Amino acid sequence: MIQKIDHLGIAVRSLEEAIPFYENALGLRCEGREEVASQRVKTAFFNVDGVHLELLEPTSADSPIAKFLSDKGEGIHHIAFRTSDIAGQLAQASGAGVRLINAEPFEGAAGKWVAFLHPKSTRGVLTEFCALKKGEAAH
Amino acid sequence: MIQKIDHLGIAVRSLEEAIPFYENALGLRCEGREEVASQRVKTAFFNVDGVHLELLEPTSADSPIAKFLSDKGEGIHHIAFRTSDIAGQLAQASGAGVRLINAEPFEGAAGKWVAFLHPKSTRGVLTEFCALKKGEAAH
Repeated sequence: MIQKIDHLGIAVRSLEEAIPFYENALGLRCEGREEVASQRVKTAFFNVDGVHLELLEPTSADSPIAKFLSDKGEGIHHIAFRTSDIAGQLAQASGAGVRLINAEPFEGAAGKWVAFLHPKSTRGVLTEFCALKKGEAAH
Repeated sequence: MIQKIDHLGIAVRSLEEAIPFYENALGLRCEGREEVASQRVKTAFFNVDGVHLELLEPTSADSPIAKFLSDKGEGIHHIAFRTSDIAGQLAQASGAGVRLINAEPFEGAAGKWVAFLHPKSTRGVLTEFCALKKGEAAH
């Protein structure tokens, strides 16, 4: 079952240029940063009542975010739904005819297990399921 | 101050075709529908732990959503942040150099006051502020 929206991924060309919008214009506070080598991105997190905005800057030209920026420009990249049963959630989506990008979860940012559905099957919304590792507190 | 993410607006060509993805593949439940004549859209709402997903289907070729679909295809259209002080939030954004689409709030879906920031000023993310009318319970 989906428990909540865990985070929204937002593709930006530069964290340094994007963070001031969220801090100064919206009044949010940057809670932390992390580099996710597997996705070739640097991230900055903002917590909005338990839902994170995750700014994503590519660290390499072959990052998935670099391709998104090149195709579509800056903007919202994906929605991540928190679940306690990522395998069950993937099975439900697959059973409903949705194409999976990741049939098996992999380790994403903040030490979570994550898996993506293909936007061709989700009406254009790149959709992620994510689950906390057992024993870890909510991020 | 921003209190929470109120909703995510998602542009779709057809509510009838999009709703089954959210119901069957994600396991969410459609909580209601509404037509917003001023925006020339029909909407369907899903509640995910207090944050709404708001599917938006244009009812007319001159709807802002029809233009978005034509330019970018289906996908996430905007993020709406809930605030108790929409005028103050607009003044803060404007003071930080953000261009406003609406300098004054107008009445949006679900009887809320809403105003949009211009995506050219927000790194590609169409950003809405919304406020409940005085005395109304949270949607």
